[in-house]
Amino acid sequence: MNNYGESNGDSNVHEKQVEGHDHCENGDGSDNRVILGIDGGTTSTVCVCIPLFSSSKSLPNPTPILGRAVSGCSNHNSVGETAARGTLEEVMAEALSKSGSDWSAVHAVCLGVSGVNHPTDQERILNWLREIFPSHVKLYVQNDAVAALASGTMGKLHGCVLIAGTGCISYGFAEDGREARASGAGPVLGDWGSGYGIAAKALTAVIRAHDGRGPQTMLTNKILKALSLSSPDELIGWTYADPSWARIAALVPEVVSCAEACDQVATKILVDAVQDLALSVKAVVQRLHLCGEDGNGSFPVVMVGGVLEANRTWDIGKEVMKCIQEQFPGAHPIRPQVEPAVGAALLAWNFLMKESTGNSHS
Amino acid sequence: MNNYGESNGDSNVHEKQVEGHDHCENGDGSDNRVILGIDGGTTSTVCVCIPLFSSSKSLPNPTPILGRAVSGCSNHNSVGETAARGTLEEVMAEALSKSGSDWSAVHAVCLGVSGVNHPTDQERILNWLREIFPSHVKLYVQNDAVAALASGTMGKLHGCVLIAGTGCISYGFAEDGREARASGAGPVLGDWGSGYGIAAKALTAVIRAHDGRGPQTMLTNKILKALSLSSPDELIGWTYADPSWARIAALVPEVVSCAEACDQVATKILVDAVQDLALSVKAVVQRLHLCGEDGNGSFPVVMVGGVLEANRTWDIGKEVMKCIQEQFPGAHPIRPQVEPAVGAALLAWNFLMKESTGNSHS
Repeated sequence: MNNYGESNGDSNVHEKQVEGHDHCENGDGSDNRVILGIDGGTTSTVCVCIPLFSSSKSLPNPTPILGRAVSGCSNHNSVGETAARGTLEEVMAEALSKSGSDWSAVHAVCLGVSGVNHPTDQERILNWLREIFPSHVKLYVQNDAVAALASGTMGKLHGCVLIAGTGCISYGFAEDGREARASGAGPVLGDWGSGYGIAAKALTAVIRAHDGRGPQTMLTNKILKALSLSSPDELIGWTYADPSWARIAALVPEVVSCAEACDQVATKILVDAVQDLALSVKAVVQRLHLCGEDGNGSFPVVMVGGVLEANRTWDIGKEVMKCIQEQFPGAHPIRPQVEPAVGAALLAWNFLMKESTGNSHS
Repeated sequence: MNNYGESNGDSNVHEKQVEGHDHCENGDGSDNRVILGIDGGTTSTVCVCIPLFSSSKSLPNPTPILGRAVSGCSNHNSVGETAARGTLEEVMAEALSKSGSDWSAVHAVCLGVSGVNHPTDQERILNWLREIFPSHVKLYVQNDAVAALASGTMGKLHGCVLIAGTGCISYGFAEDGREARASGAGPVLGDWGSGYGIAAKALTAVIRAHDGRGPQTMLTNKILKALSLSSPDELIGWTYADPSWARIAALVPEVVSCAEACDQVATKILVDAVQDLALSVKAVVQRLHLCGEDGNGSFPVVMVGGVLEANRTWDIGKEVMKCIQEQFPGAHPIRPQVEPAVGAALLAWNFLMKESTGNSHS
């Protein structure tokens, strides 16, 4: 696996405080040094600060959080590079301050960020972090799905994560470090199991019932009421007015309600979404042979996102898991107990441990 | 049918020339008065000027075009109201000038314009025209699909039109004036038979083949080559970079080529698109009972747009027609011999004839 972790060779604004800093042991295996874990999303950015347990082989559970800060968008595609960098620096400074710590204590940073689809994306973001931190600080940049996986496996990169919120993606790692992903390509490229995909299909069903191409469905009244519209014709203007995916994905609960009331059109939409989400995981499992030689090997499937966590009678997450287990009985679901930012911090810790083990063997 | 034709009650800049204007007969049933037909689209606006044949019951064929002008976008959603109105006035002035005519000779105007989905859309555009023309000039505003239908039926509103270009829509009229439409709701609302829909499904198939969710397909090499990309991963960035529908729809020829080479994935995409387009027409035919009581009645289906006119071995338009005729043997295809702007002009002429017949009976 190429984790794009790198140390910074340049001198830095925060470096002057670092040299000669004493790392006093706290008695629990930690010293004053810290790890920053960041979950950089389109709506908000979360940073947590955890202690560096350098001498222990496993982290205490629950993970002690020294400080946590939330800021705005750090997706450079949305707000531009300057604003995104500003947000990142601000949220890290605040998390450090709340921890009673400072830049000089930072030993490693892991940023899980959406929209990292290509090595060039990671390289660009690493360059920003390199300008902030001195050369000895370990820096890691990952797709946000990787941090989400780590949030369910306490930082260990093994198994598969399935995220289904407004968008959807499946991402997995084999024990030997090989990685694979499926879906996560956006609405144009057919992420039909996503919240956007489910809701767009429901809106389409309303139009088709209205113009005679499809069967009547409860979705019509349910969705028109939710949007305060009086006719399906008005849905065309409604979608053109603001095509943002999250606005459309927000209709998923209406679809689930109709399926719970046994509406056949809504039920078919959810059944198809379940098949699509399960297929994303199965494709990753097969490519990485996560199920072992006999197909019955055990591996975790971390389940994240509003579509899978709805906790309704018609439970999409449960159905997806059932569908995966029909083919791979060793798949076991994990609902993360910590947020993705903590996953990112745990990931950094695991990378550090792996590197130090690697060094001790070399 | 509410055709939103209206006369203008206000005085007007061009009115002064009109009073006392002599309408000399030209010997062929026309006088100096003219009709303007306009096809207002998102990429361009076409205006044609035809003579008013007030004393004849049918128009000469081919329709004599006195003048024709082309201008830019007149879709107010794209360029704003001021620019759209400016474009309309400019293109009409140029068509009149090329005809050796002027504003005072205009007897009727029909504007077929995309994006007219609601009575309020028509009312707004009529208000613009009202400010340009004096009160005796007849003004008609229609969805561009109605002008396309008229381009195939010499202005008679009967039968059904199917447009499949970047988008798709089906629109029909019964003899008694009832009207109905299907599809035409845009990409979010599932116009899967459109050029955009076909190409988006092909791009999705490439992603699915790449991440293991779908079968391998010729589409991968064909599309990557057409877009000068080296890996399916890069398609994600390509779609995010510019989500314009026409850019995606431009890939339809690649899909047709793969289907002609017997690629099963491409073939299924086209077969599904054919079913979807045929269903749009069938829904309109059924709602309007265009096929008569016994289901065998004759009615025209006007076929318009790049997807239907491709003239390839794998002929989407021919397959759609076959599919419609399986259910409605009386459906007969028409490929318009004139452009939509001429259809709009013919439509205006037909409205005028209907109104004068109505008046002579009253």
